[in-house]
Amino acid sequence: MSKEITSRSADYSQWYNDLVIKGGLADYSAVRGCMVIKPYGYALWENMRDQLDRMFKETGHQNAYFPLFIPKSFLSREAAHVEGFAKECAVVTHYRLKNDPNGGGLVVDPEAKLEEELIVRPTSETIIWNTYKTWIQSYRDLPLLINQWANVVRWEMRTRLFLRTAEFLWQEGHTAHATSEEAVAEAEQMLRVYAEFAEEYMAMPVIRGVKSPNERFAGAEETYCIEALMQDGKALQAGTSHFLGQNFAKAFDVLFLSKENKQEYVWATSWGLTTRMIGALVMVHSDDEGLIMPPRLAPTQVVVVPIYKGDEQKALIDTRVKELMQTLKSMGIRAKYDDNDNARPGWKFAEYELKGVPIRIAIGARDLENKTAEVARRDTREKTTVPMDGLPETIQKLLGEIQQNMYNKALSFRESMITKADTWDEFVKLLEEKGGFISAHWDGTPETEEKIKDLTKATIRCIPLNNAMEEGKCILTGKPSKQRVLFALAY
Amino acid sequence: MSKEITSRSADYSQWYNDLVIKGGLADYSAVRGCMVIKPYGYALWENMRDQLDRMFKETGHQNAYFPLFIPKSFLSREAAHVEGFAKECAVVTHYRLKNDPNGGGLVVDPEAKLEEELIVRPTSETIIWNTYKTWIQSYRDLPLLINQWANVVRWEMRTRLFLRTAEFLWQEGHTAHATSEEAVAEAEQMLRVYAEFAEEYMAMPVIRGVKSPNERFAGAEETYCIEALMQDGKALQAGTSHFLGQNFAKAFDVLFLSKENKQEYVWATSWGLTTRMIGALVMVHSDDEGLIMPPRLAPTQVVVVPIYKGDEQKALIDTRVKELMQTLKSMGIRAKYDDNDNARPGWKFAEYELKGVPIRIAIGARDLENKTAEVARRDTREKTTVPMDGLPETIQKLLGEIQQNMYNKALSFRESMITKADTWDEFVKLLEEKGGFISAHWDGTPETEEKIKDLTKATIRCIPLNNAMEEGKCILTGKPSKQRVLFALAY
Repeated sequence: MSKEITSRSADYSQWYNDLVIKGGLADYSAVRGCMVIKPYGYALWENMRDQLDRMFKETGHQNAYFPLFIPKSFLSREAAHVEGFAKECAVVTHYRLKNDPNGGGLVVDPEAKLEEELIVRPTSETIIWNTYKTWIQSYRDLPLLINQWANVVRWEMRTRLFLRTAEFLWQEGHTAHATSEEAVAEAEQMLRVYAEFAEEYMAMPVIRGVKSPNERFAGAEETYCIEALMQDGKALQAGTSHFLGQNFAKAFDVLFLSKENKQEYVWATSWGLTTRMIGALVMVHSDDEGLIMPPRLAPTQVVVVPIYKGDEQKALIDTRVKELMQTLKSMGIRAKYDDNDNARPGWKFAEYELKGVPIRIAIGARDLENKTAEVARRDTREKTTVPMDGLPETIQKLLGEIQQNMYNKALSFRESMITKADTWDEFVKLLEEKGGFISAHWDGTPETEEKIKDLTKATIRCIPLNNAMEEGKCILTGKPSKQRVLFALAY
Repeated sequence: MSKEITSRSADYSQWYNDLVIKGGLADYSAVRGCMVIKPYGYALWENMRDQLDRMFKETGHQNAYFPLFIPKSFLSREAAHVEGFAKECAVVTHYRLKNDPNGGGLVVDPEAKLEEELIVRPTSETIIWNTYKTWIQSYRDLPLLINQWANVVRWEMRTRLFLRTAEFLWQEGHTAHATSEEAVAEAEQMLRVYAEFAEEYMAMPVIRGVKSPNERFAGAEETYCIEALMQDGKALQAGTSHFLGQNFAKAFDVLFLSKENKQEYVWATSWGLTTRMIGALVMVHSDDEGLIMPPRLAPTQVVVVPIYKGDEQKALIDTRVKELMQTLKSMGIRAKYDDNDNARPGWKFAEYELKGVPIRIAIGARDLENKTAEVARRDTREKTTVPMDGLPETIQKLLGEIQQNMYNKALSFRESMITKADTWDEFVKLLEEKGGFISAHWDGTPETEEKIKDLTKATIRCIPLNNAMEEGKCILTGKPSKQRVLFALAY
C-alpha cells in the first residue's frame, strides 16, 4: 500500500504529517509557510465553522467583515499590541508591478509606493476599534457583539501544517460593552462556548483556565484559555478569549455617553479559534492506521462499500443500499455509497480507515442472503454483523457511542497525564520521562516563569479556573505560593 | 428623520450610497478602497453564499482553500494573465517591522526583505494550477471540481462600495478536465447556475452571453457572462465563467496520462461571483424609501411590530406573537419580533422600510379585539388587514408573491430597455437619451469595439447565447455583420 503511515512510536512528528497529507487534509504550498487546505480538510473546517457559528449566533453575535489591511500607524497605537505583532508582519509597500525597462521581467513599480505601508492583518483589534469609534456613541449602541470569519497572517519562521502556518483561517470575535463586569462576563461566556465545542463536538477534553501575565495576548488585561493534551504528552492551546479592559478604546478614542450622561471609555473583549484546531483534532484521536474523526464533525459519518461478483449481485446490493441511503439522509446522517469500480473493497477499507470515517458498512453476497450487513467502527476497529432491519437506528446509536467513547478515551489519557510535582527534581524528571501537565507551585513572578522556561522549555499553560487554594512552595525558588498551576511542554 | 435618502431622480449615485450606508449594508474604512461589510450586509452575503454553495455542491464541486499570497514569478507564467493583473497588485515586500533606531517610530525592517515579492491574490489561477500539477497524474484524477470562498485584492483607483473595491469577497471555481468538450460544458453549466441564482434568488433578470475578445478574462479562450440592467439604464456584469483552454496547464506544466496512455495537457475553467452582486441587488430593486430585499435572500423576511398602550395590552400582544413566531420559524421563515421599547412604532416602520424587510406586520389594540393583523408588503407598499387565523400561510404565500413580483417588475423594465439601433446617430441618441441595452450590428473587430468605446464609453456587454443570426451593417464602419450584439454603458 502506497499510503503507509509512520507509527507514533517511530516518529510522532512524521506520523502527524503523514496523517495530514496522506489523509487528504492539507498540503504544502509554493509559498513559504502557507498551506493548501484540501477538500477533505476544508469539509471538516466547514463543519467546525458551522457549529461554532450557530453557537455564536445563539449567544447574540452577528457576523461582519473588516478590511484585510491595517495601516501601519494603527498597530503602534496600543503599546503591548505592537510589541506582540510587529516582528511577524507581512507588509504591503507597493500597489503595482511593471515590466523592467532593462529586461529584468516583472518588477515592483517604484512609482507605486504607498504613502503608508499596510500590514496584512495578524488580528483585527486595531482596524475594528477604529471602526467602532464611528459606530458607538451612547450606551444604546452597546453591547456590540460582532464576529468575523477571516484569514490572518503571522510570519512564522518554523511552520507546521495547521499547527503553525503563516496564513491561517479563524474567527475573531470583537465585542464592546458599557461596563467592565459585562465585558468580563462576555469573555467568560465565550470561553464556555469554546470548551463546549471542544468537548461536545471535537470529543476533546480541555482544561479551562487563565494565562499567566507572560502568556497573555498582546494588549489584554486577562486571557482565558482552553488547553488540550496531545498523545505525545504536549499541551496545545485550543482557543482563547481576552478581556481587553479599556486598552483599545483608549488607543482609538472610543467613548460612549453612559446612562448617567457621562463620557466613558468602552470595555472590550476579543476571542478567537483557528484552523489549528484541526491539528489538535488529528493529534488527540488518531492512531497508527490513520485519522479518527469524531462523528459530530466527520465530513462523512458512514461509508457503504459493496462487495460483489457480477452485475446481478451488484444490482441487488444497489437496491438495498439505495433505500438505506435515503433513510440515513432523512435522519441527517452524512452517508456515502462508494461503488466506484476502479478500486477493490480492500483498498477502499484502507482508504476510509486512513480518512477516519467513523462507521464503515460492507454488504456482500452472504449479507444479501441473510439480510445483514457488516458494520465496522473506526475508533475500536470492531466489526459486527447486524440485521439490515433496523440498521439506520443501529447506526445512529453507534455514532453517539463512538462520539462518547472517543471523548472518554481522550479524557482518561488526559487525566492519567496530570501529575503533581513538589520539587525541582521531580518536575524535571516528569518533564523528561512522562510529559503531560505538571501541577506545581510557582511564586507568581514573571521572572521565575521565564527562568523555568529557559531551563526546561516548559511554560505555564494555565491557572485552572476554580483552582483549589493550597499553601506551598515554588518548585524553583522555594518562595511561598497559594495555588498550583499547570506546566507543560506545548505546541 | 435623520436617515433621509436622496431620491433617484435627484442623484442616482448618492441614492445608492445612502442606501448602502444608511441601510446598514457597508461602510467606508480607514484603508483606501477597502470597505467594512456591516452585520446586515454580511447576513445578506451569508444567504447568497449558502445558496450558491448548495448549488455548487449539487453540481459535484467541493470547497478547498489556497494561499492568499502568490509568488511574483507565478503571475508572469501566463502572458495574458499578467498583462491583465500586474497593474493593480498589492505587493508584499517585507515580513517584519521594527522600531526606527533614529526615533521615527515603527518602520519596515530593511533586513526582512523577501527574496521574491508576494502578490496578494487578485484571482487564484496561478497558485491553484501550480498545486494541481501535483494532484493530477492520470485521467482518473479528472475531472477535478474545486471551489474556493475567499477575499481578493485588486488595486482600483476609483472605488465604490460593493461595486468596485480594492478588497472584495467572492468565490472562485477552478476545474480541470480531460477534454475540451468537458471543460466547455462545465463553463456553460456554471453560467446556468449563476443565471438561476440571479433570477430565482436575487429576482434579477439577466442576459446570458459571451464576451467579445476585448472583454475576455485575462487568460481565457472564452468568457461567458450574465449581464443585468440597473435602474439608471447602466449594465452590470453579474458573474463570469471562463473556458481557459490549456493555457494554465501549459503555463504550469500540468499533464495527465489519458485513457489512451498519452501525456496530454489538462483543460481548465474558472468562474466567479463577488460581493459586487450585493450592489446589483440594491440597484435593481430599491426605491426612494430604501432597500427592497427579495424574500429568498432577505436576512429578515418578516418583522412584527407591536402597537400598544400599557403593560396589559403589551402582554396580550406578546402572547399572540409568541405563537406566531414559533409557527413562522417552524416553517423556515426568518421572522423577528421587534418589541424594543426604546423606539416608537413609526420609527420602526421607517427603519424596516429602509432596510427592505419584505413583510411588516403590525398588531395593535383593535387587532387584538378583531383577531387581525395589519400586513404591509415592502415591494408595493400595500397594507391589508388580515385575520390572525391562517396568518402564517398568508405570509408564506405572500413571500412567494413578492419574490415573483420583484422579478416581473425588474424584467419588464429590462425588456423596455433593450432597443435596436441601426445607424450611428440612433445609437448615440439612444445612449444619451434612453440608456439601457442597445442591440446593434458590429463588424466583429476589436478595433471597432475600441473605437466605439472611445467615442461613447459604451462597451459590448455580451453576444447573447442563442442569438438570432441576421445580416446587417456595423453601426460604426458599415462593414457587414451577421448578428447584433448588446452595447451599454456599464458599471
